[in-house]
Order: sequence, then C-alpha cells, then structure tokens
Amino acid sequence: MLRRGALYLAALALAAPTVAQDAVRSPDEIVAAAPSRDWVTIAPQDLLVMTLAPDAEGNARKVVIQLIGAPFSQGWVDNIRTLARADYWDGMAILRVQDNYVVQWGQPDPGMGIAEKPVPEGLRVMDAADYTVTLPPAPEMDQSVFPVTTRQRNQFLQRMLPLFENQGFDRKEFTSFVERAKGDSYAVETAIIEGWPMGLGPSDDGELTAWPVHCYGMVGVGRGNPPDTGDGSQLYAVIGHAPRHLDRNLAVVGRVVEGIENLSSLPRGKGPASYYADPAKRVPILSVRIAADLPEGERPHLQYLSTESVSFWDYADARANRRDPFFVKPAGGVDVCNIPVPIRAVAAE
Amino acid sequence: MLRRGALYLAALALAAPTVAQDAVRSPDEIVAAAPSRDWVTIAPQDLLVMTLAPDAEGNARKVVIQLIGAPFSQGWVDNIRTLARADYWDGMAILRVQDNYVVQWGQPDPGMGIAEKPVPEGLRVMDAADYTVTLPPAPEMDQSVFPVTTRQRNQFLQRMLPLFENQGFDRKEFTSFVERAKGDSYAVETAIIEGWPMGLGPSDDGELTAWPVHCYGMVGVGRGNPPDTGDGSQLYAVIGHAPRHLDRNLAVVGRVVEGIENLSSLPRGKGPASYYADPAKRVPILSVRIAADLPEGERPHLQYLSTESVSFWDYADARANRRDPFFVKPAGGVDVCNIPVPIRAVAAE
Repeated sequence: MLRRGALYLAALALAAPTVAQDAVRSPDEIVAAAPSRDWVTIAPQDLLVMTLAPDAEGNARKVVIQLIGAPFSQGWVDNIRTLARADYWDGMAILRVQDNYVVQWGQPDPGMGIAEKPVPEGLRVMDAADYTVTLPPAPEMDQSVFPVTTRQRNQFLQRMLPLFENQGFDRKEFTSFVERAKGDSYAVETAIIEGWPMGLGPSDDGELTAWPVHCYGMVGVGRGNPPDTGDGSQLYAVIGHAPRHLDRNLAVVGRVVEGIENLSSLPRGKGPASYYADPAKRVPILSVRIAADLPEGERPHLQYLSTESVSFWDYADARANRRDPFFVKPAGGVDVCNIPVPIRAVAAE
Repeated sequence: MLRRGALYLAALALAAPTVAQDAVRSPDEIVAAAPSRDWVTIAPQDLLVMTLAPDAEGNARKVVIQLIGAPFSQGWVDNIRTLARADYWDGMAILRVQDNYVVQWGQPDPGMGIAEKPVPEGLRVMDAADYTVTLPPAPEMDQSVFPVTTRQRNQFLQRMLPLFENQGFDRKEFTSFVERAKGDSYAVETAIIEGWPMGLGPSDDGELTAWPVHCYGMVGVGRGNPPDTGDGSQLYAVIGHAPRHLDRNLAVVGRVVEGIENLSSLPRGKGPASYYADPAKRVPILSVRIAADLPEGERPHLQYLSTESVSFWDYADARANRRDPFFVKPAGGVDVCNIPVPIRAVAAE
C-alpha cells in the first residue's frame, strides 16, 4: 500500500542509508545502515538446506532453515540432524499447504497412498515437557513476581541469562529487545533473545518458563495427538498470521531464513485440512542437507541482525513507532511477531 | 502440523458435528454445527467480484471482497463502487506481491511503464480523519475511562452501539465478541463487531475512537505520502501476519471472503517493495464488478457467522482455549486477528 511513497523510500534507502535522519529512518533503513559488528553469522551446522524440484518454469527452489539453539527443542533438533544425515527426506514431498496457516512436508501419514519410510536408528523420543524451558530460580526474587515495572521486567529477563551461558552470551552486554507493548494475548511477557522470539510465563506448577513462539516462517514438528509421537520426520512452516495457540503445544525447531516464498506461494491443498487431494500437486523434495555437510561452494552464508545490538533496538523501536514520512499515526506498540529478525546473505569468508 | 490428529478431527467433524461433546469441540466443529439463524447473508451491493486471468493450467481465478459497512471508511467504499461501475479496473493488473505483507492491484504508479487511467468523475477526497470513527459521548460515563473491569469494558462497548443504529442492529441482543485477552499491542481494546475486527482507543484529542484493523485478508486503499491521495483506485489485501502498524494509517475498506488463495499464492515480486520487476508477471484483471450488478446466476452467495451469535462466542472461546484432543496447553487468550470470522457459500435463495 506504500504507493508512490514506497518507491520514494526504496530510492532513499539505496541512495543514502547512512545519512538518513534518525528521526525519520524506516526500519529497513536502520537495518541497511547497521554496522558489520551487529550481524551474527549463522553456523553451517545450524542451517538445513531443502532443495525442492524446480518450478514449472524450471526455476530452482531452495528453502533454508535455521535450527534453534540450546536449550530449546534440542531433542527434536538432534533428530532433524540425524534424519538429514540419513538422507531421510530425499524423494519425499510437500504434503499440505493451508492458506493463512502452514506448509507441511516429510514423512507421510497413513492413508496418503505413500509408503511410510522407516526413520533412522537412534531418534530421541521427546515429550510435551520439552516444549518449554524452565528458568533457573533467582533467590533474591520472588518466584511469583511477573513484570509490572521496568525493574521487575529486567529482573525477569535476567533470569533468562543462565540459559544462554554456554552460548558465548555475554551477560554484561545483555540488551535483548523486550517488547514494549501494551500486552500479549498468549504470554505474560515476550522478548526477542539470541535471535529468537520468545514467550515467557508460568507453568501449571508456577515455575517460570520460556518458549519459542509461532511467528510467520517458524518451523515446527508435526505429530499425532500424543505429544511424544513427533520425532521430527514431518515438519511444518508457518505461512500466515502467527498461530500462537500452537505455542507450547508443538515443538518449534527453527525458522525459514531464505526461500520462504518457495513454500508460501505454493498452490493451496484441496483435501481435508488442506492436504493435497491430488498426489500430482505434491512438490517433490530432492534433498535436505545440513549446510555443514555440503561442499563449501554450495553452502548458504547467512547472518541475522544481533538482537543484542543497538541496531536491533532501533529497528524494533521503529517497527513500534513508524516515524518515516508515510505514517500519520505511529502505533506506539508492536507485537513480538511483527518484528521479524532481519536476515542477510553474505559472501563466503 | 495436525498429523494423524488432523485426519481424525476432520473425520469427526464430517461424521457427527452435532453430537460432538461441547468440552472437546474444535472451532471448526462449532462453526459446522451453527444453526442457520446464526448466519448473516452478505448483501450483493457489499460484494466486489474481481475476476483475474486464468492460471497457467487454465483454472478460473476469482476473488470476492466484502466491503465494510457504515460508518467505517464509507467515502472510500463509495469511491470503490463508483470505480467498479465505471469498469475502471478492467484490463489492469496485480502490481505487487510482497511475502508476509500485501498483494496490491489497480491504478499503476508513475514509472511502471503503464499508462495511468483517469478515474471517473465524482470521487470523494478522503483524509486521515476518516481512518477512525469517533464514538458518541455517554453522559453517564467518564470520557477518559478505559476498560479495566468487566463493567467498564461493557460500558465502553455500549458506546459503540449508536454507530450501528442505522444498520438494523438490535441493541437488546448486543453480545458482540470482545477479546478476552491479556492485552493488545496496538489498541486499548479490541472487539469483533457486526462481522469486523475493531480496535478501540483514544484519539490524540482524548476522544474515544474505533477503527477496523489490518488482519489477514483485510483490504485497504493504497496511497502516496499525503493521506488524501488514496482515492480507492489502487487497493491491497493483507497476505501475512497482521500488519497492525498500518491501523489508523490507511483506510480499511473490506476483506477477502472468497478466493484469497488466488492472491496469496501468487509469485512474489522481485522489484523494489516487491512490485513485479518483470511486467509479464503481472496477473491481468479481467473485470471487477459489484455483485448486485451481475446477473443473478453469476453472483456469489455468501454468509458470515454472526459475531453477535452464541455460536460465534463459542467459536471465539474455543479459539482462545483449544480443548480438542490434539492440544495439551490451551492458550487462555487469543488476539483479535486469530479469530477469523467464518464465511460460507450457500445456494441462491
């Protein structure tokens, strides 16, 4: 809807990203001007590269997924690496495309007319308890306190820190973006930490827990009704409004960081739950590999804008308060899924 | 991600929608069981029928848009009826498809290599003031009170009533769904009223105002930087996570009620702001008509689930608290854009 304004802003961003006035910088301009030190390289062992059959015009189709880091969903993430290294998904297909919801692929369900393929040995069985991570207790802080004041909010987030201690996370520089919103319908608090959108809130037992949330592009593990039936062999990606009701009901294992349009623009399925009724519509998966297992020349080189950087804070603030000339009424708030973490491709080092 | 569970639930819904236990009914099951009296027929003068060129396989592509009713955005809605009746969009095209954002069509912008087409006489010039509607004052209620308690919430919503008095709205049956959420990042309160998701909150002058919000599928008016440059000749539809930062910055004029997949699954544009760089990618618009102007046999017959019905309350409650067997952790809340208003096609009367 950014009519002539859009073209103007795009031209401005290209022409002079570093001299734009702070007061009127758009989120895209802030990202374009972020210094190299604010970008974090995604490790090749955390990138899953899915190659689909070319489209009708012969264009190659690739989807790159960043796997989430410890301590979140690591049982399923381990399984996914095992499955990829067994070439498990090669020759499988996209099974389901539901508008404003998900694209789903991998291990077929019974009754789809596709032979089930045995999974490799050694997959871990994970349960609903692993949808969330319990925060370590902070003796100086009342366990039952939830954020009301800025100080309480900071205390609450400080309790997140030990989760990341093995990740090279520097607690002195802990400035992760915390949504300065009026509220959230699904979590007591939301934040974007180490590159991931997170919900924070109490478990049924009153412990403080954190969990990755279902924003656009996030990838999760399909399962049957019993939660422990999801082994990672069937995956889905969100292609619509954040289905946050799935938070804490399914394992979030990553997000699409390149090629989401190769999933989101697929024809919608016409069977029950938008599975493809016509098997011919299922897009074949040629291969799924961990980037670290690919020859150097075939690896994607991607970075995300550090969510612990000033650039990210500026970006998130601009998403919440659009001051660029197109806007007449800055929102004054933003939901956690409306601050997509910026991703960029870079040349091989 | 509803693996075997999805097929099970779909089968259940087909087999016995009326005997399913209340405690475990899914939102879809509640909608399937809603009695006829809970469905509202959309008037043919409120339906815009856009016919796109057939796809590569020769399949017809139609998109039906429901125009919003008074008192919201009516200047632009009037313009859209005038434009449709002048066959204004015939021969134009889809200009822009941006992943997780919008599809945009109609009047081309300068520099696109398409001749601009003069708009018909008599279009109204609308301004930013018309993005919102001011609620009538309620003498018994402090103007500055915003909802905290249920009673305040009800008082607040009672002030919405006069807006709908000319719409056949029965205030005795006022039961519109109000989001029972922990909060919203963009509005003091949200509600779904007369079929439309609404934000409620103060204007800069402290008056209480209401506005339609940018959920998935909502349609708005493209414009340049000055707000009064949007006449309705260029429109967009949301095809991603609700871009709520656009609320009160653009005119929401309706929503797609049929054929959204004919927009959302289009190839993404590769030019600046995801406009199509290659003119050959632009899908031609064959015609756009008001359904009332079509021969009876060509009119769509659509209904929405009354947002003032018990069925809708049950549906919204189930969206907020999934109790069907697949779910292990009901969210206990839901955001206003995660309760899409159910639409169904019916036989001509």
